Amino acid sequence: MSIAQNTETTAKLRCIACGATPDTAGRDFRCTVCGDLLEFFFPEWTDGAEPRHHTDPSALKSLWLQRRTSRDALDQSGVWRFRELLPHIPNLEEHAITLREGNTPLYHLPRCARVAGVEDLHAKHQGMNPTASFKDTGMTFAASSAHQGKFRWVACASTGNTSASMAAYAARGNMHSLVLIPDGKISWGKLSQSLDYGALTCQLRTDFDGCVHILNELVRQKPVYLLNSVNPYRIEGQKTAAIELMEQLAWEPPDHIIVPGGNLGNSSAIGKALVEMRELKLISRLPKLSIIQAQGANPFYRCVHEFGGKKLEPMTADTLATAIRIGNPASWKKAVRVLQATGGEVEQVTEVEIAAAKAEIGADGIGCEPASAVTLAGLKKLRRSGFVKAEESVVLILTGHLLKDPDFTIKFHRGDLFAGTAGATEAVQAKYLQRAPIVLDADLGAVIAALDAAERNS
Amino acid sequence: MSIAQNTETTAKLRCIACGATPDTAGRDFRCTVCGDLLEFFFPEWTDGAEPRHHTDPSALKSLWLQRRTSRDALDQSGVWRFRELLPHIPNLEEHAITLREGNTPLYHLPRCARVAGVEDLHAKHQGMNPTASFKDTGMTFAASSAHQGKFRWVACASTGNTSASMAAYAARGNMHSLVLIPDGKISWGKLSQSLDYGALTCQLRTDFDGCVHILNELVRQKPVYLLNSVNPYRIEGQKTAAIELMEQLAWEPPDHIIVPGGNLGNSSAIGKALVEMRELKLISRLPKLSIIQAQGANPFYRCVHEFGGKKLEPMTADTLATAIRIGNPASWKKAVRVLQATGGEVEQVTEVEIAAAKAEIGADGIGCEPASAVTLAGLKKLRRSGFVKAEESVVLILTGHLLKDPDFTIKFHRGDLFAGTAGATEAVQAKYLQRAPIVLDADLGAVIAALDAAERNS
Repeated sequence: MSIAQNTETTAKLRCIACGATPDTAGRDFRCTVCGDLLEFFFPEWTDGAEPRHHTDPSALKSLWLQRRTSRDALDQSGVWRFRELLPHIPNLEEHAITLREGNTPLYHLPRCARVAGVEDLHAKHQGMNPTASFKDTGMTFAASSAHQGKFRWVACASTGNTSASMAAYAARGNMHSLVLIPDGKISWGKLSQSLDYGALTCQLRTDFDGCVHILNELVRQKPVYLLNSVNPYRIEGQKTAAIELMEQLAWEPPDHIIVPGGNLGNSSAIGKALVEMRELKLISRLPKLSIIQAQGANPFYRCVHEFGGKKLEPMTADTLATAIRIGNPASWKKAVRVLQATGGEVEQVTEVEIAAAKAEIGADGIGCEPASAVTLAGLKKLRRSGFVKAEESVVLILTGHLLKDPDFTIKFHRGDLFAGTAGATEAVQAKYLQRAPIVLDADLGAVIAALDAAERNS
Repeated sequence: MSIAQNTETTAKLRCIACGATPDTAGRDFRCTVCGDLLEFFFPEWTDGAEPRHHTDPSALKSLWLQRRTSRDALDQSGVWRFRELLPHIPNLEEHAITLREGNTPLYHLPRCARVAGVEDLHAKHQGMNPTASFKDTGMTFAASSAHQGKFRWVACASTGNTSASMAAYAARGNMHSLVLIPDGKISWGKLSQSLDYGALTCQLRTDFDGCVHILNELVRQKPVYLLNSVNPYRIEGQKTAAIELMEQLAWEPPDHIIVPGGNLGNSSAIGKALVEMRELKLISRLPKLSIIQAQGANPFYRCVHEFGGKKLEPMTADTLATAIRIGNPASWKKAVRVLQATGGEVEQVTEVEIAAAKAEIGADGIGCEPASAVTLAGLKKLRRSGFVKAEESVVLILTGHLLKDPDFTIKFHRGDLFAGTAGATEAVQAKYLQRAPIVLDADLGAVIAALDAAERNS
């Protein structure tokens, strides 16, 4: 069992801090020299030569489009369809594990555009992936790498979207999966998916960092494949969301792309794809990639605005947007580079701003989980600050499906979400979107009166 | 505001009971002569003439395939891509409301195939639609019809998948939506979607039939468009799941298609599509379409096996598979015709059989809601009875996403689902798939021991 290095193509591993280029990765995916994260890079793309035949931009665009008509499972995947921009996995046909991930819709958001004060607003909905979050695009690639390495076990520390996605792909690839979670803080709804897919779930009598510590020990001692976000294969798979987005926009980049910021792996992946696509002349310019955090889980916001992107101070994170409730994001250095490369901004938003934005996205007929809604909330602030202009085009990356957290929606509409802050400006601000059910007698006149009242208030 | 009849193409409305062919439908979509359901038919397809150019089978197949490479929103929808087989909606570009529904994956189920004792088993997963159930394929078509008719309000009586889908498409089309539900029986999780999309929800002090009664009164008195399953536009949209399935199978029909049976609209739609595709020579033979009900909600099973398909006796339905907890299915006569046309069977399955089948589907890496799992449970019985043979090919239609009902999954794995029946054969039968979380000290040795134990038991 080993993490295979690519021998046929040009992808190589490199440490993001010290620049070391190991031939193979250790099972903890850390640099053996300095301990920092590894990433893939493609030396041939940046050697100054003219694009080679296999990276000719128009040939690639045409190939990827034609694969849409193929019945081959790899071609039908929105990740594997773009495999020319991913590291090579040997004997791919034998090892690829796919659930037809990717191929997610790009939605126009007319109502949200009015609210935010921009003319051209779209959402790329990664929550429409098979397990209902963006994690699937990275997981198909990393799980396939595990399968190619002949691993029988894969593992992560996560109570949410990562474990759901990992367990699905492991089951699909006939591998066992292990989920480590802190005891006493189980969100049963979030665990339902990994249980359904047959994961072994261990609640450890420690906190989240304690789980990560045990997990790193475990993969060093036993042949268990690590599927946490430090795994660089996951980042590569997640790049495809940006490639697919550019294809949907006829390879005309928008002015802005806005991404929720939690562990910062997704921001890093999308930024990496943008830079690589420009290198390969697939696009002619870079959109500004901006990252939005919840105010209660804002270590990256503080990293950039207080420490100039030089250091990240871990914190105890607290936000109802659980998918980005992360106090010590693994990929912060990669995200700093993305901001620098694209000229993007980092913003933070409050809980009520998140709830209002989520309801506004819902009113456009598109559901999402709270973490996804930080993008619209952040856009409003970036618009007010002048960073985003009214005539500029904007794409929000929605990362999870509404059904990932129905409780948040219910509490919002019943008025229970901010019950303690009633009367506060922020709570009032979101109120106009609340739609609590009305109890009526079984009487036609009563229903008609409710209809008329709703019509008047709309 | 009116329900437009199609003037440009050949679709006409016909009563399924008395054969009356009204020019337009009333707002309750009932036959004005006898009160039974209406359906669309296409006289040109069955006039004995050779296929016309616009229904030439190979031209259609090629057209539909090429649309996969289009950037047009209608072409990208897995419903509108097949619009040649649907009634014409005037000024479609102006009125079509789409969320890029359809395009759902066809998954191979290797583990379930072994369990069921068949060689070739696939699942068409309609739970991968935007609002996470099969309802979206019908709703895009019916909601567009409402928009074309200039309705400002759409309505249904439903606490589940129908209201979620309706509310999303209404919001998308700038229409208001009304959901009527019985007071006191609210499943908040199921309602989260329609609340998020801004539906007006009225809890009436009556039962479900009372809600339906008020709703029918309402649409007769006010310009409100009825989106319950009696709406024949919904059936037309749902046909596309079968068309897309045949395309995925290179137009080679499987031997069997197995569908969950609740209100029986979906069985009717898929059966209708199969018959029409054979008429148009898109396929050369009909698969057997079989319908599976939960034993506690089996009015159609009894209709067929006790009353020879001649009458349906309504009942009080009781099953944890809430999406098919229906005691008085509206489309039972249509479903009887489908069984007769295709030679399919009707089977019923117990609660434990449903839970075991759901866990087996999950172990293949594919989640679904309990109602979807009746298909695998039913297949096992049809295999034992000899109706399905080992070498025959089978496609299960999964109708809803796992996240539609996470509580069922959690309770199953914690052993709470059949706590009252502990020791019963059926409860034991499902037990081997249960994966309750294990509580451990934060100790590497303990985790490794758990891993080894899981390995031994697998």
